[in-house]
Amino acid sequence: MDNQSYYYDYQLTIDKILDSGCTTFPNQEIVYRDLRRYTFSSFSESVKRLKTGLRRLGVRRGDRIGVIDWDTDVFLHLYYAIPSLGSTLHTVNIRYPPDLIIKTILQAEDKYLIVRDEFMPLVEKAKNLIPPGMKIITYNDNKEKVKSDVQSINFWDLIESNEPSEPEELNERTEATLFFTSGTTGEPKGVSFTHRDLVLHALSVSLVGSRPPINISSSDVYLILVPMFHVHAWGYPYVFMISGIKYVLPGKYDYGNILRLMDKEKVTFSAMVPTILYLLITHPDSQSFSHVFKRWRVVIGGSALPEGLARKAKELGITVVGGYGLSETAPVLTVGFYNSLIMNSTEDQKFMEQITAGTTIPLVELKVIDPATNSVVKGKKIGEIVVRSPWLTKEYYKDKGKTELLWRGGWLHTGDMGFIDDYGYLHVVDREKDAIKSGGEFIPTLLLEDVISLHPNVSQVAVVGINDEKWGERPIAFIVPNGKVSEDEIRQFLQVKVNEGRIQKWWIPDKFIFVSSLPLTSTNKIDKKMLRDMAKK
Amino acid sequence: MDNQSYYYDYQLTIDKILDSGCTTFPNQEIVYRDLRRYTFSSFSESVKRLKTGLRRLGVRRGDRIGVIDWDTDVFLHLYYAIPSLGSTLHTVNIRYPPDLIIKTILQAEDKYLIVRDEFMPLVEKAKNLIPPGMKIITYNDNKEKVKSDVQSINFWDLIESNEPSEPEELNERTEATLFFTSGTTGEPKGVSFTHRDLVLHALSVSLVGSRPPINISSSDVYLILVPMFHVHAWGYPYVFMISGIKYVLPGKYDYGNILRLMDKEKVTFSAMVPTILYLLITHPDSQSFSHVFKRWRVVIGGSALPEGLARKAKELGITVVGGYGLSETAPVLTVGFYNSLIMNSTEDQKFMEQITAGTTIPLVELKVIDPATNSVVKGKKIGEIVVRSPWLTKEYYKDKGKTELLWRGGWLHTGDMGFIDDYGYLHVVDREKDAIKSGGEFIPTLLLEDVISLHPNVSQVAVVGINDEKWGERPIAFIVPNGKVSEDEIRQFLQVKVNEGRIQKWWIPDKFIFVSSLPLTSTNKIDKKMLRDMAKK
Repeated sequence: MDNQSYYYDYQLTIDKILDSGCTTFPNQEIVYRDLRRYTFSSFSESVKRLKTGLRRLGVRRGDRIGVIDWDTDVFLHLYYAIPSLGSTLHTVNIRYPPDLIIKTILQAEDKYLIVRDEFMPLVEKAKNLIPPGMKIITYNDNKEKVKSDVQSINFWDLIESNEPSEPEELNERTEATLFFTSGTTGEPKGVSFTHRDLVLHALSVSLVGSRPPINISSSDVYLILVPMFHVHAWGYPYVFMISGIKYVLPGKYDYGNILRLMDKEKVTFSAMVPTILYLLITHPDSQSFSHVFKRWRVVIGGSALPEGLARKAKELGITVVGGYGLSETAPVLTVGFYNSLIMNSTEDQKFMEQITAGTTIPLVELKVIDPATNSVVKGKKIGEIVVRSPWLTKEYYKDKGKTELLWRGGWLHTGDMGFIDDYGYLHVVDREKDAIKSGGEFIPTLLLEDVISLHPNVSQVAVVGINDEKWGERPIAFIVPNGKVSEDEIRQFLQVKVNEGRIQKWWIPDKFIFVSSLPLTSTNKIDKKMLRDMAKK
Repeated sequence: MDNQSYYYDYQLTIDKILDSGCTTFPNQEIVYRDLRRYTFSSFSESVKRLKTGLRRLGVRRGDRIGVIDWDTDVFLHLYYAIPSLGSTLHTVNIRYPPDLIIKTILQAEDKYLIVRDEFMPLVEKAKNLIPPGMKIITYNDNKEKVKSDVQSINFWDLIESNEPSEPEELNERTEATLFFTSGTTGEPKGVSFTHRDLVLHALSVSLVGSRPPINISSSDVYLILVPMFHVHAWGYPYVFMISGIKYVLPGKYDYGNILRLMDKEKVTFSAMVPTILYLLITHPDSQSFSHVFKRWRVVIGGSALPEGLARKAKELGITVVGGYGLSETAPVLTVGFYNSLIMNSTEDQKFMEQITAGTTIPLVELKVIDPATNSVVKGKKIGEIVVRSPWLTKEYYKDKGKTELLWRGGWLHTGDMGFIDDYGYLHVVDREKDAIKSGGEFIPTLLLEDVISLHPNVSQVAVVGINDEKWGERPIAFIVPNGKVSEDEIRQFLQVKVNEGRIQKWWIPDKFIFVSSLPLTSTNKIDKKMLRDMAKK
């Protein structure tokens, strides 16, 4: 007999994450609001029963399953159960307009759709568009059958009436997830990831989690504050299981409830976009939760972390670090942990580095290149950020042209402009699409926003370019004030920063527009496309 | 153009470990005795120059290169340079008898042999056996040409006269290492590992390093005390680079010098077999180094950690944990970190678990089976330990029969007997080959040794079986006493342990033989084969 048939070629598949987590941390907890609690063991058991239920319903390898949900225990089940069956988890972007939601579901060729009751009106409205063979599975928190004129299967029946399944033997290159990303402009593009991508991503993110100043261990409690439709909620639904961290899911975001949940469950760690951090620390109830902030460590990604916001968080006792990645990169590429060059620096130096976009995590290769020549630029010179890593999307779904652009020269092109500082930390100074070119030179809008955010009476700021006959483009700043502040005061403040050498004189925006809030994209990033439209008016 | 040609399929190769380490910890140190110091950056540069030198000498993909050396900076260079060229690092077991060393070199079909000057007499003696095409590379610490009647190339010329090389693009399934293992009995069997095996092993070992009570961070200093010919020195030559830990190499082991080196370089962390720990803490100079022991954390593997030794180490302030693995498993499978079941236990309970063989590290699946039926045994029942993981050897080199036995049923059979306790920790109670079957029942020798080692006047102990007409086999104990102790005193002590329920009455050895030291194998494990021979006389 051939001995090859005996050797077990262990594949890096998502079920292995669940098995490892349960073996080592069987009694660690998963908490969904004040509604349900699991141990890792009981959760794993529940996932295995769900797998049997889905299999019996007809789910097969290669099927895609769309999920429309908040950050819930149901969604967490599906993060494990669907890929472990060899099927694809399609995390539907619930912040898209209804038309676009349906369009992405059709584009993904989903065979099943799992929908939380609140989102059923959307499905009901579009029922004529839904292919006849598609099965709809619905659920609500109290486990009753969801009432609707669209026929559906009760999700809870799939879990509760079934025996745990046996593991599937899958190849690690099997597609595990698919979702659509539009960035801040353009039509949604589909990106997908394999089991191997997600396992390696989770291992590397877990590894840097234990590094200072994040210092995560299995004594920590993680609250998810990234929507689970948004690029695997940054990988934490897998990371927490490897690292043995208690995991808290808030459901639909209600910031007052989130603060109370953080207090009750003793949350110590979260990741989120800057806007959510801003909304939490400026929430009317926030003063009653100062003890919660003091023990809180936070990774900020999605958009650049403004220095002003980081300093406000620091004053509250929050340990805040930056991070960087894209939908196309699973997402994490860099995190603001301490490397050996700053480990023994002053507290202030360390702070300034930890709030950059961070430094690469293991198995990420990142360089900054001159877009014209493709040669590496060094010494703080600004260029395009390109990367290699084992967890990057292979292609844009059914879009050969965009895929070729993404991967030109064998490097994934992020479309972001940045530089690497003397300590090895990445500064993302602009989205390529948001870049302002004035008099032939780039004005790094994120850097400029950062400096404006330092003014004590500036809550939030966004800078966009408008066409200018003389200079090509000129910057305009939108400002959400904190108390009373005039354009003149901000101009004077920026002149001081020019004198300090932090910005160039010609970067100072031509116009300051005061607004009560900034428009956000579906992933809570500031919507610069809309601001550009507003600026034109 | 086909977009597949653009996508970069990132491979898990050993050069990526070096790149990641250097990017994050460029100024972290590597120290070779009091002779040479490197930063991770300068070491990486040096490895890249060596790669050019080896390439120019003629080294090609698929070539095997034997290395005969102590734990030196030269060997560490070769751990990275040889596999990164697509060649195989053959770590030659220097503790084998000379005939066997030559035999394994011929069996591996090494095309190059890299030899430290001290080992040249071995090569000179065997020069008629060495194939004519084989190139010999020699080195000594002062970088002079090694004088010998065998023609050789000076290793240092390969590094110092060359430019750094460009990276090779290798498939992660490329063979990276090969070495021969004999366990404590039998002919050497070759095992090999791929880049993928070693990268995944290093990631997982790095991950658990940060868990309590080991708590390793980049502020730690690792002293290697595992011979580098011995199953990748347990992976630490790669782990330290990912984790950014300062790395200290002692050269040839001299225990007095090792204590001084630990003091000077502020060592905080090591891994080793129990014998080395015993030799260090009982060394005549050890009393002057009590401050060094107090900050020391130690992982013990290779053979079971006797409770008596663990308690002695604890009294000195050393944090000691067990670990388990085989040459065939790269090697790490389990480590005695705290899982969630014992995290909040009493200090004594935690201690008793951390000194077992430990609990599985991420991506290791381990079960204990009844060898007769292959069914899983639970509830502390003893059976054979079998495993799956992405870093297990695929086969025994050119030995189909033994490979089939190793991998029967798709699980790697460790040949060790053990059980998993209520907290999920593995207890290895016997090597299958050392097992004593008495009256139809197994006597777990490692467990028995553990209990005997608790007697205050017992320094070291080993139990082996001898044939017995009535019972089949009966146990005999070899004891290295610490001060004055009689057979009667030990028998009385064991009777107390019988009364406490820790051992069975019929396990008490028939005979106690007092010796001044125990014979060791080439990897410093107690040589039970030799003890069985001694017992027969």
